[in-house]
Amino acid sequence: MPETYFIIPSAQHNQLIERAYRHRGYTAAEAHDGARFCELASTHGIRTHNGIKAIHLDDHFGSKVGGCTPGATLEKLPSQFKAVQKWNANKKLGQSVAFAAMDTCMKLADEFGTGIVTVDNAFHYLWGGGYVIEAAKKGYIAYTCCTAGTSEVVPFMGKFPTMGTNPHSWGFPTTDAIGYPICIDWATSTVAMGRVQQLAREGKQLPPGAAVDAAGNPTTDPHKAKWLLFFGQHKGYGLALVNELLAAFTGSGIPYLRGKPNEGPQDEKHTPHFYFQCTRADALDCGNFPAGRNQSTNVKAVLADIRGHGNDKVMWPGQLEAQAAALTAKHGGLLFTKAEIEAFNEIARDCGEKAWDFTKFAIANV
Amino acid sequence: MPETYFIIPSAQHNQLIERAYRHRGYTAAEAHDGARFCELASTHGIRTHNGIKAIHLDDHFGSKVGGCTPGATLEKLPSQFKAVQKWNANKKLGQSVAFAAMDTCMKLADEFGTGIVTVDNAFHYLWGGGYVIEAAKKGYIAYTCCTAGTSEVVPFMGKFPTMGTNPHSWGFPTTDAIGYPICIDWATSTVAMGRVQQLAREGKQLPPGAAVDAAGNPTTDPHKAKWLLFFGQHKGYGLALVNELLAAFTGSGIPYLRGKPNEGPQDEKHTPHFYFQCTRADALDCGNFPAGRNQSTNVKAVLADIRGHGNDKVMWPGQLEAQAAALTAKHGGLLFTKAEIEAFNEIARDCGEKAWDFTKFAIANV
Repeated sequence: MPETYFIIPSAQHNQLIERAYRHRGYTAAEAHDGARFCELASTHGIRTHNGIKAIHLDDHFGSKVGGCTPGATLEKLPSQFKAVQKWNANKKLGQSVAFAAMDTCMKLADEFGTGIVTVDNAFHYLWGGGYVIEAAKKGYIAYTCCTAGTSEVVPFMGKFPTMGTNPHSWGFPTTDAIGYPICIDWATSTVAMGRVQQLAREGKQLPPGAAVDAAGNPTTDPHKAKWLLFFGQHKGYGLALVNELLAAFTGSGIPYLRGKPNEGPQDEKHTPHFYFQCTRADALDCGNFPAGRNQSTNVKAVLADIRGHGNDKVMWPGQLEAQAAALTAKHGGLLFTKAEIEAFNEIARDCGEKAWDFTKFAIANV
Repeated sequence: MPETYFIIPSAQHNQLIERAYRHRGYTAAEAHDGARFCELASTHGIRTHNGIKAIHLDDHFGSKVGGCTPGATLEKLPSQFKAVQKWNANKKLGQSVAFAAMDTCMKLADEFGTGIVTVDNAFHYLWGGGYVIEAAKKGYIAYTCCTAGTSEVVPFMGKFPTMGTNPHSWGFPTTDAIGYPICIDWATSTVAMGRVQQLAREGKQLPPGAAVDAAGNPTTDPHKAKWLLFFGQHKGYGLALVNELLAAFTGSGIPYLRGKPNEGPQDEKHTPHFYFQCTRADALDCGNFPAGRNQSTNVKAVLADIRGHGNDKVMWPGQLEAQAAALTAKHGGLLFTKAEIEAFNEIARDCGEKAWDFTKFAIANV
């Protein structure tokens, strides 16, 4: 059954998000980055990490409670190593830090073939996929991971949540091959806590291996589910440990305390960590592709083979996001439901802006 | 119930493996690398990728059938990018190539903070964990992935195996913190094909989501299982696609043809690909660890927290391998079962060496 969406011009959406950030004390540049990122997310159909989420995040974990500092200075720390930069974000707005870090990774990759930026004292960058998709569109193999803002996942064979949903995002420059970047992007928990709440509302069960109850015992009942589990047992747990170790080597502290600013000793840290890397695709090109192909046509042939042999139902990671972006382009604006527009209007009221008038927007039944 | 192992001195084991490789035409240096790697695997209790497997691999996919070329030259290809090297392995012995590549990554990391080696026309490097553990012991955050030698895994939502078990291995320099490197190391398939065969022999069922039958339908009956599935549905599939894309950008061809030297057009390739990266731990050190800790004590505190709060049953990835290495050290030799020694003796006979005399070895009941 098609759902009805209102088509909101990007400029109008961005103006509101910028206004909301400015109202909270963020600089014009931060507000611009914040809005640009939310546009990017909504363009790609990412409804869990759009402008509504970004502003709520600032309410609950950001500038309102000291987790994010408007106007903070991004410090590039001295290092003898030229292809790896160390940054102290000083809790600056996550989207600004992430855009800048990915830009720097691309510049480092242009010079050295690959480049890394590791970020201490970060806030939250919302949707890692957005940053790697942008870099992949420019020809880079891009990667980012971060530690999640709170500890809500129980390590494999454990009972208590001492880890986050620690996501990973990879982007590959496959636009020539299939029309858009392949974007592999997910959290290491089986499902998100938001999904548990949604299933509880809908009276549905969780998949096995997704959650435990308060005593640490596995449950598929979303009403009993208290903490999350990693996907793929020890494998997802191992993947989440990658983020946590990169954070620990960089400067993050006790994972249990993350997102709990009022707990723990005064000199502990509560901030997440970001890690970014870009590698130039041509830095990997060994110049000896089979059957007379070049790098681009080879990638195309490899992907065609994976989806060949009767595998036509196989989807590319990033395909749904690319389809959403095509829909956004077709309709000439960002698609939001009535409930979402009401949430935007609440954001507008909070910063003294006029609510959007539903009757002024065109409608898309998708 | 304890199992009985024979304790084989490393030198004696290595001498046999070197002899077997030399008999097949490998150079002294290759034979040395080959044996050193098998010692490393058996030291860490890796029974699936030990000397027996290495020599069988050479029989079925290596020098006997043109998949691996004894004495091949490792070519470093020209590149303008200093932190990323491109190599043509010319099907040289996998262990030699992997040791050399990881060494180069460490040297690049010493200079630039991080370094990558991508390898075209590779053979098989057996157990990625071994390479990253060695680099992590030297203080590097190490990573490797490769495309598996054959296509036996069905992509998510597919019917036919066009991908490999594409493994990933991460090593972290955590020896100061917990006594050994954390090593996250596994294939992206739920189980290996060897495990399917083992369960069939033992009359046991497969876990759900591990295999499909010849028609591409999911099955838990190991007798009906024909092809494998990725762990974690779209997530494991995405992870396996990372290896395949790095290979495609480097120079590998059609994945379905991998390990099938007699199929496909003459100018297609059939070789796997290797990817290596090392990053210096100190290149990530932002120098602002909480509660007066330094990088090493911070990593220790973070790990203690994850395994705290009642999570004492949580294991570290790499813990079993470290325990096996401790056992090897305690007994002063590599531990092999009677069946394994019989397999070694077959290898000995094949290359004109004397069989090992069971009565000469000390015994360990583990």
